[in-house]
Amino acid sequence: MNEIKIFCPATIANISCGFDVLGLCLEATGDEMIIRKSEVKGIRITKIIGADLPLETSKNVAGVAGLALLEAVNYEFGFDIEIYKNIKAGSGIGSSAASAAGAVFGINELIGKPFTRKELVHFAMKGEALASGSEHADNVAPAILGGITLVRSNTPLDIIKIESPSELYATVIHPQIELKTSEMRAVLQPMVPLKSAIIQWGNLGGLIAGLYTSDYDLIGRALHDEIVEPLRGPFIPQFDVIKKTALENGALGSGISGSGPSIFALSKGIETANKVANAMKAVYDKTDLPYEIHVSKINSEGIKII
Amino acid sequence: MNEIKIFCPATIANISCGFDVLGLCLEATGDEMIIRKSEVKGIRITKIIGADLPLETSKNVAGVAGLALLEAVNYEFGFDIEIYKNIKAGSGIGSSAASAAGAVFGINELIGKPFTRKELVHFAMKGEALASGSEHADNVAPAILGGITLVRSNTPLDIIKIESPSELYATVIHPQIELKTSEMRAVLQPMVPLKSAIIQWGNLGGLIAGLYTSDYDLIGRALHDEIVEPLRGPFIPQFDVIKKTALENGALGSGISGSGPSIFALSKGIETANKVANAMKAVYDKTDLPYEIHVSKINSEGIKII
Repeated sequence: MNEIKIFCPATIANISCGFDVLGLCLEATGDEMIIRKSEVKGIRITKIIGADLPLETSKNVAGVAGLALLEAVNYEFGFDIEIYKNIKAGSGIGSSAASAAGAVFGINELIGKPFTRKELVHFAMKGEALASGSEHADNVAPAILGGITLVRSNTPLDIIKIESPSELYATVIHPQIELKTSEMRAVLQPMVPLKSAIIQWGNLGGLIAGLYTSDYDLIGRALHDEIVEPLRGPFIPQFDVIKKTALENGALGSGISGSGPSIFALSKGIETANKVANAMKAVYDKTDLPYEIHVSKINSEGIKII
Repeated sequence: MNEIKIFCPATIANISCGFDVLGLCLEATGDEMIIRKSEVKGIRITKIIGADLPLETSKNVAGVAGLALLEAVNYEFGFDIEIYKNIKAGSGIGSSAASAAGAVFGINELIGKPFTRKELVHFAMKGEALASGSEHADNVAPAILGGITLVRSNTPLDIIKIESPSELYATVIHPQIELKTSEMRAVLQPMVPLKSAIIQWGNLGGLIAGLYTSDYDLIGRALHDEIVEPLRGPFIPQFDVIKKTALENGALGSGISGSGPSIFALSKGIETANKVANAMKAVYDKTDLPYEIHVSKINSEGIKII
């Protein structure tokens, strides 16, 4: 195999109570990439369609992630990468993660799969470090592994794929304003009240238990962010209204996707997820704000060859 | 039924990463109580064997918890309670919780079970409030429900019984020094680093996932307390040595039981749990410190009629 075409899914990081540790893979939206073996060593980004991103390998997340993998295998060939972006940069649904994950997944396939999917996460994180300044796995882990993932620890990297119930659907609305991940990190407080932290980990425990037992009510009760959402919500247009609307229309819970500005809701069943989508749209339709919206099953497979 | 005799199990609260939210029910040690219907309204503590605790109803955790339940049902009879304490007060394995749980469980049985076990937790928490100044459920919930419990939320009270693998055993050693829960609360810092909180909830998520999937290695990796143990450990004689010894002898993890001074370890299989117990004993045997030690299966049933 000298060439591979892959689907690189969008992802929702944090999932309310799981700040910096949880992520969820979407099925309905993502990028495509074509990766080709080349006689010339190294990695070249030969084409980017759909986004204004740097072609220079060392400045491109796919390039950096791919190089990290190649350094680990001492491979004699090189790779040309074409990226077809559908996930907008800065949308909060893992745009950089999709590219980083795609590069390492595709190259790994082309060199005979020396690494497991879990092992690939480590390399993809090097791309995330370029994009946001920190090596985080909360988007690349679900993009690569699919489903809902828990990053128990970053050092050493310990990722657990969490069971998720079959009728869980996500609705994600992306108001097209620019929020930089780095700026959204800056609004966080370095110290948090122990009381709030206890509420947060109580909810995280409840969410994990709800996912394993398909207890949708429990999932709903646990989808609450005590710490980060109050700080970041005000930066997102009509966040409170969108969230309230989602809940009123039957969503189990709603919150900020990643560092925003996208807002997600989780629902039981596609009918509710669609109803939530329509209600969310109605809120932004009253404004001039352009938006994109997606309704998606949880993508249990993750990144894949197409 | 006019009289009931019950076993009120000891419990381990917190379980390292689950500060204030997790608890675990033991089988090998606990109190006994006899509760009798009486023509005289109210509750009387008629006998306490094994501990120097107040007989006055309003100053006794069993009395206060029992009265809280009776107020909710407007019952025409009263109850006499005998308490046979095996769990030492201030041991950190839920001594007050056992008495509070016993009172409400026993009375509920005698009046025709108007409340579910889960509903009883609320009343038992009134006893805990008397003992420690705060209504907490992390010991009474596992005492009443059995197994491992997660208190997702205190207000409203939301308790989830977590699946736990069949080969999980606890070793608990109680160095007989006095540590007051209130004093151990005072060493906590009201603010904690967000970074530490993230590590803590990553581990809590990992622990819950490990329990649902019987992944003992994951349980072990997740049994880590980033926040509270460093502050409380120094108050417990040779805490670091006992913990290290437990891990060296095959325990999955080890930490402070409740607010101490008891130290627990969790192991896969009773052989390892016994080996850990012997190794822990050897540490304290080199000192003059009196101690008690218990090896116990997780008690999946909780408080029960005997």
